[in-house]
Amino acid sequence: MTLWGGAFSEPTDDDLRALNDSFRYDRRMAQQDINGSMAYALAMAGAGVLTRDEAETLVGGLTQVAEEFDSGTFAVKPDDEDVHTAVERRLGEIVGDVAGKLHTGRSRNDQVATDFRLWVMDAIDSLTGKLRAVQAALVEQAEQHTETLMAGWTHVQPAQPITVAHWLLSMFWPLERDIDRLRDARRRCAVSPLGSGALAGTPYALDREELAKALGFSGISQNSLDAVSDRDFTVEFLSCVALVGVHLSRLGEDLVLFSNPAFGYVTLADRYSTGSSLMPQKRNADSMELTRGTAGRLIGYWVGLMTTLKGLPTGYNKDLQEDKEAVFAGFDSLSLVLPVAAAVVRTLTIHPDKLRAALVPEMLATDLAEYLVKRGLPFRQAHHVAGRAVRLARERSIPFDQIPLADLQALSPLIAEDVAQVFDYAASAASRAADGGTAPDAVRRQLEQARHALTQ
Amino acid sequence: MTLWGGAFSEPTDDDLRALNDSFRYDRRMAQQDINGSMAYALAMAGAGVLTRDEAETLVGGLTQVAEEFDSGTFAVKPDDEDVHTAVERRLGEIVGDVAGKLHTGRSRNDQVATDFRLWVMDAIDSLTGKLRAVQAALVEQAEQHTETLMAGWTHVQPAQPITVAHWLLSMFWPLERDIDRLRDARRRCAVSPLGSGALAGTPYALDREELAKALGFSGISQNSLDAVSDRDFTVEFLSCVALVGVHLSRLGEDLVLFSNPAFGYVTLADRYSTGSSLMPQKRNADSMELTRGTAGRLIGYWVGLMTTLKGLPTGYNKDLQEDKEAVFAGFDSLSLVLPVAAAVVRTLTIHPDKLRAALVPEMLATDLAEYLVKRGLPFRQAHHVAGRAVRLARERSIPFDQIPLADLQALSPLIAEDVAQVFDYAASAASRAADGGTAPDAVRRQLEQARHALTQ
Amino acid sequence: MTLWGGAFSEPTDDDLRALNDSFRYDRRMAQQDINGSMAYALAMAGAGVLTRDEAETLVGGLTQVAEEFDSGTFAVKPDDEDVHTAVERRLGEIVGDVAGKLHTGRSRNDQVATDFRLWVMDAIDSLTGKLRAVQAALVEQAEQHTETLMAGWTHVQPAQPITVAHWLLSMFWPLERDIDRLRDARRRCAVSPLGSGALAGTPYALDREELAKALGFSGISQNSLDAVSDRDFTVEFLSCVALVGVHLSRLGEDLVLFSNPAFGYVTLADRYSTGSSLMPQKRNADSMELTRGTAGRLIGYWVGLMTTLKGLPTGYNKDLQEDKEAVFAGFDSLSLVLPVAAAVVRTLTIHPDKLRAALVPEMLATDLAEYLVKRGLPFRQAHHVAGRAVRLARERSIPFDQIPLADLQALSPLIAEDVAQVFDYAASAASRAADGGTAPDAVRRQLEQARHALTQ
Amino acid sequence: MTLWGGAFSEPTDDDLRALNDSFRYDRRMAQQDINGSMAYALAMAGAGVLTRDEAETLVGGLTQVAEEFDSGTFAVKPDDEDVHTAVERRLGEIVGDVAGKLHTGRSRNDQVATDFRLWVMDAIDSLTGKLRAVQAALVEQAEQHTETLMAGWTHVQPAQPITVAHWLLSMFWPLERDIDRLRDARRRCAVSPLGSGALAGTPYALDREELAKALGFSGISQNSLDAVSDRDFTVEFLSCVALVGVHLSRLGEDLVLFSNPAFGYVTLADRYSTGSSLMPQKRNADSMELTRGTAGRLIGYWVGLMTTLKGLPTGYNKDLQEDKEAVFAGFDSLSLVLPVAAAVVRTLTIHPDKLRAALVPEMLATDLAEYLVKRGLPFRQAHHVAGRAVRLARERSIPFDQIPLADLQALSPLIAEDVAQVFDYAASAASRAADGGTAPDAVRRQLEQARHALTQ
Repeated sequence: MTLWGGAFSEPTDDDLRALNDSFRYDRRMAQQDINGSMAYALAMAGAGVLTRDEAETLVGGLTQVAEEFDSGTFAVKPDDEDVHTAVERRLGEIVGDVAGKLHTGRSRNDQVATDFRLWVMDAIDSLTGKLRAVQAALVEQAEQHTETLMAGWTHVQPAQPITVAHWLLSMFWPLERDIDRLRDARRRCAVSPLGSGALAGTPYALDREELAKALGFSGISQNSLDAVSDRDFTVEFLSCVALVGVHLSRLGEDLVLFSNPAFGYVTLADRYSTGSSLMPQKRNADSMELTRGTAGRLIGYWVGLMTTLKGLPTGYNKDLQEDKEAVFAGFDSLSLVLPVAAAVVRTLTIHPDKLRAALVPEMLATDLAEYLVKRGLPFRQAHHVAGRAVRLARERSIPFDQIPLADLQALSPLIAEDVAQVFDYAASAASRAADGGTAPDAVRRQLEQARHALTQ
Repeated sequence: MTLWGGAFSEPTDDDLRALNDSFRYDRRMAQQDINGSMAYALAMAGAGVLTRDEAETLVGGLTQVAEEFDSGTFAVKPDDEDVHTAVERRLGEIVGDVAGKLHTGRSRNDQVATDFRLWVMDAIDSLTGKLRAVQAALVEQAEQHTETLMAGWTHVQPAQPITVAHWLLSMFWPLERDIDRLRDARRRCAVSPLGSGALAGTPYALDREELAKALGFSGISQNSLDAVSDRDFTVEFLSCVALVGVHLSRLGEDLVLFSNPAFGYVTLADRYSTGSSLMPQKRNADSMELTRGTAGRLIGYWVGLMTTLKGLPTGYNKDLQEDKEAVFAGFDSLSLVLPVAAAVVRTLTIHPDKLRAALVPEMLATDLAEYLVKRGLPFRQAHHVAGRAVRLARERSIPFDQIPLADLQALSPLIAEDVAQVFDYAASAASRAADGGTAPDAVRRQLEQARHALTQ
Repeated sequence: MTLWGGAFSEPTDDDLRALNDSFRYDRRMAQQDINGSMAYALAMAGAGVLTRDEAETLVGGLTQVAEEFDSGTFAVKPDDEDVHTAVERRLGEIVGDVAGKLHTGRSRNDQVATDFRLWVMDAIDSLTGKLRAVQAALVEQAEQHTETLMAGWTHVQPAQPITVAHWLLSMFWPLERDIDRLRDARRRCAVSPLGSGALAGTPYALDREELAKALGFSGISQNSLDAVSDRDFTVEFLSCVALVGVHLSRLGEDLVLFSNPAFGYVTLADRYSTGSSLMPQKRNADSMELTRGTAGRLIGYWVGLMTTLKGLPTGYNKDLQEDKEAVFAGFDSLSLVLPVAAAVVRTLTIHPDKLRAALVPEMLATDLAEYLVKRGLPFRQAHHVAGRAVRLARERSIPFDQIPLADLQALSPLIAEDVAQVFDYAASAASRAADGGTAPDAVRRQLEQARHALTQ
Repeated sequence: MTLWGGAFSEPTDDDLRALNDSFRYDRRMAQQDINGSMAYALAMAGAGVLTRDEAETLVGGLTQVAEEFDSGTFAVKPDDEDVHTAVERRLGEIVGDVAGKLHTGRSRNDQVATDFRLWVMDAIDSLTGKLRAVQAALVEQAEQHTETLMAGWTHVQPAQPITVAHWLLSMFWPLERDIDRLRDARRRCAVSPLGSGALAGTPYALDREELAKALGFSGISQNSLDAVSDRDFTVEFLSCVALVGVHLSRLGEDLVLFSNPAFGYVTLADRYSTGSSLMPQKRNADSMELTRGTAGRLIGYWVGLMTTLKGLPTGYNKDLQEDKEAVFAGFDSLSLVLPVAAAVVRTLTIHPDKLRAALVPEMLATDLAEYLVKRGLPFRQAHHVAGRAVRLARERSIPFDQIPLADLQALSPLIAEDVAQVFDYAASAASRAADGGTAPDAVRRQLEQARHALTQ
């Protein structure tokens, strides 16, 4: 039996049931739904609408329903169109008519908003933990490589020597911002809509603040009409999730590329690689390709939800039911990808020799310009001189650090024998020691900041 | 056992398996996979790579595997990472070592592209049928209402009187274009990649054209590297699907609005309406709200896939595995919504009295302008005169058709007593009789075109 | 002259220039670029890299460049590929060779990130002001209508009587959340990347913290490689902007619908309406249709940017240049729409009589159920009784409040003569007096909260 | 003067004008608008609504307006809210009152749909030409490299030897499909809405078919209400455009990667590369990064438009005005990128030595398996043997082609001395000679197909 059939003359068509019924996916909110109902029953007793006994009976029955969900023994009935109906139906079987008092003053509109907010709050906590694991893996690897050098890129071209730890930590901070964003999203999510009824509020003397606190919310919604149709918390959750996806896509792209033998910078553990059904030698970074590819669907979930929300008129509209599958799918995707990403990073073999071999003297052209700046040449001219030196080396097919001194001096009389000191990768990296720079000293300070963040 | 473990020293991690394995969703391509393998075995016999006996053994074994899938008795093993592996594994159990010959010269890269194209071709056929059913329902309703008048809208404001059939058929033609687009998409999908191997083509003298024909393709791919990474057919499918979604969202919006009692133009059948858990009187057009809302997720699927494809380098990349869930979900969503849309239209009660009651004389202001045009006034001036008449009526709070003749004549001396003929809704509609117009005569011709389209 | 041609043998092709050059749009960051350069010059003097005199000369020259931009006299040269190049080029014309010292240790990578963050911080301040104006207009209207009744909707169906102020304020709180989100986005944006160089950090003893403070940032980036490629702040800005768009689309949809004569709830001011080139009587809520439609492009900007970011490898990549047009366009769209939305709300005429006329007795069915609850019937049974009453009224075509008492009592013996008190719209609304409810008293408290928010 | 002010009491507010007016961007449809008006005037003369003289006067005046737009002398007036208003206003100045007859029976709703369809048809023709140029450049390069070998990738890992021409042509066919899709889109776009009026059709005896033909359409719309609100042609155009963008992003990604010195496969011409303001040695493939990044915005335009369309009710709604900027921007973006892509390919230097150097013996492991297949081993076992050989070589750190024969024979007794023939990259590639394969012979056939396509 549905919760609403009194005024209807024929049952819902099966086609519509297939489209409309949400129990197959919203059953994962069973715990939140039951917790919400327990707190509501007690609050309604506080408001004098239920007796203390009735409330306790309801809480007892709900406890049993919760156990059935937990243990997997909950028996679904064909008319269980959603988790709310299923729980109330089962509660009635257990406690009898008093179950019919639970929904007093409540609508599925405020009920589902309450359940879903609680679920998203839990989801944020869960994802935060998984993000922390990826960060911890990055820190762990970085600690081993504060002095290891590699070619830093811009435009996928060798740019300047950097430390491997610096590269690894460049993926730590985006995740830190993600966690910060999720924290803000959680704060805005932790607002209780319970007591909003279908749209107009409750006629009972419910202490909404106390009820909210009991459920773990930090405050209550200010407008019941807004409260039942507000899905900002799902949008914000999915926008955070999508951006995590984009950050992971960078990690994926880097590791996929760095695994190519032309670089050979890293090797993924065998158990995070896969092979080919045709080519016996293949060793693919599938794990990182899937990590890279997940961003697409995560972006798609946000778009789908936003588009569904666009143009809806005032009040709850059934279109809002589309929110759940998108949020669940976003959470599930990220929950699958994050542990793989953490494990890949943690078990990654980094090859300092290959990284070193990719350093080329031209990457020190900036250092040559800086050498000239120290000798008084304005940077813009120094840049030009160094650029001409690069061209000279290329035209003669000699390494940039092997240009005869006389030729360099022909480009600028400021160049002296001590120019040789410029051609030192480690010194170049070590020189960038201001906060946030790639110098080992700066990176060690950065690591401290990172470790501190992990404890937050 | 996976198809590729020879060079590996440790098994795949469970976390990666959870992310990587696709059997849970790609099993729905089992039939296409098995058909592809049967045709491939025969073609490889034709190429002299297998003996005729071997090919027949393989086909026999595959027939049994197909039956197991059909009957639901197929037993999954933990190592069945995808449908291709599962089928080959089971085939081996049935026919023994010869099963190991099936994959000769083939890669999962061309195999999955083949399977998936066959699946999408079937999906297009299925959706076309379901779209035809919605169109048929629209035609059926329209046939009842070629003379029924209603207020045609622009900007959600009453604009001119139109016939209800005209409104209904305005939703027929978008679906006709959708079917046309799907037909084009199917044509481009019907190109066989089989024989492309992993990327480089096949070293066997396979008759790719004949193999393609045997599977229902109309041609073969021209470049093996393109063939294994081309997902245009999925993108095109999803773009068609998304646009169907947008068209349905208009139907949904119209029927949701027209069900509001302020209009009361239509009533949805009880079995396509639902109620409220709190408000006993509610009768919601949930079916149409869900129809409207589905557009969001369909748009999201296209976006997700496109974003995943963006920036991928040459060759097959594992990111492409993201294609399947998006396409399946798009197909499933539309397959759920279309029958509901068809049934809602078919069972819709239209209320001619309410529609008629919404006609207001101002909607004939254009006809007044046309009256003046017939008497020689340039349209732009006629429009201005009619506009001033509207203003006059509003300022005096009288209906537009009750303005005293003298007042009208003060606005333009061209207005005579016969202006009364202007104020006739039916005549107004009947006058728009050119092809595509709202006049009952034109609509009957339009209906013929629509019925003809249904037979295509 | 570009800033980088030294090592090149031929000039950039015109086709690439057309694609690559960004001055046509990034010139709007001129002020931020110049401020950034002034602060940088002083900081480099502090670091001992420039003399105090040099820094002052640069600041003086930059002041003049700023004035030229302000007054519209800045003369663009063909080689001004971006605002940074243009400013440095012009500075050189004014102050001579010392201009070449400004870029010491700086790259366009950290420079553009700095400029853009400053610009976005300003943009957030500007949008916040415009959002506040919409909120103020909503509050102003709401204050006039705390007692005015209207039909609250769910599923676009009349649900329960609510107050007009409650409906208006239901659009206040989403904007309040938007402002809160923008505030968080601004906080994360206010992190200075200056001193990150191209990717590796700066070799000069720059006090990055002090430099950041001088520019209005609240802190500095922790990793130079991340700092030059981080575009989270643009993504977060656009996600906030898109959600504002979705909120405005609800306002747009409501007012477009409520302007339809079937409702007639509101009239937009003439100066915020438009007409038709063909139909003289038309009076369209174009302003609100455009407000509704803008959400699409705003969502599109976020998608475009996210998709561009997806899969980029480590370091600055030129693809990031795509960030600016999206952010500028998002800001501009919202800057156009918000003042219109504010003005439309402020100048809106609300028609209490039409709103009242739309109230129908069925909307009190919930109150009937609540009446039964008060007499001890469990809500679920009370809901069913009220539902049967609704059906009875419909079958007999009598208003819900005109069902003979005897018939009601046949449905439930708990119903007594005092049931008449149920059929009072104002009493129904007034009963929902808990926080966040629609009762005039609760709405007055809500208004206080809203007014308080406006002062934040 | 607007075209519609008669019934209004106050002028449009400036804020709304800024949001509403479209002349700044729709002026680029001036030619289509004028052509449409000329044809309409003649058709209205044919219908007897205008005299022949009036029609000729209008055509003459419109010719002058067109010249003014062409020569840049068209003088805009403040009230020119859109191109249609501007043209009609100017026409009136030139020909006097008869200008007011042009709009008889026409609405801006059918007029703008006509103009825009004509514009999109032209845009498709233009883009097709630009796509052909990219294809021609690919063919031109491919012709030089039918025998040049390179490492074909899957999963960004060396997979099998392929020919460079094969790789280049793998980017030809996606563009061929794009052209095919655009052709279909053009066909569906070439349907004339003219004569649909505002929504209800025209009351004049217009020969819509003849009018359509005169304008270059191939048929007419069947339903006037659909015709004025149908924006499928813009959606389909943008979906084609977005997919071109994704295809170009692959070209971009490949060339960006292949330009990295670790590969060094290709060098972009200096005039299609750029440098760094800080690092003198940099030589960045900016042109290809921007090509890769453009996909994002193109996807965003489609999303924006689809989202705007979603949920709109029946009839023309002003939200549809959002269609133009998206379509124009999509066209402009691609028009900028395609010539750059063509030129980069055409001027690309390919380095056969570097490509050759990246070939590694392991890439022949599949050939070893095929060798065993020829000797009767089922492929699955052959794959396993070859996989173990790969592992052996890796464990001993010897090249795959240097495994002692005895060791190979220990893995499979089927291996004989002639196994040496397996280790030949050119022979491996040449063996994949079936249609669509990478063998030089097959590629030459493919090139013929490609050249044939270019002539279509």
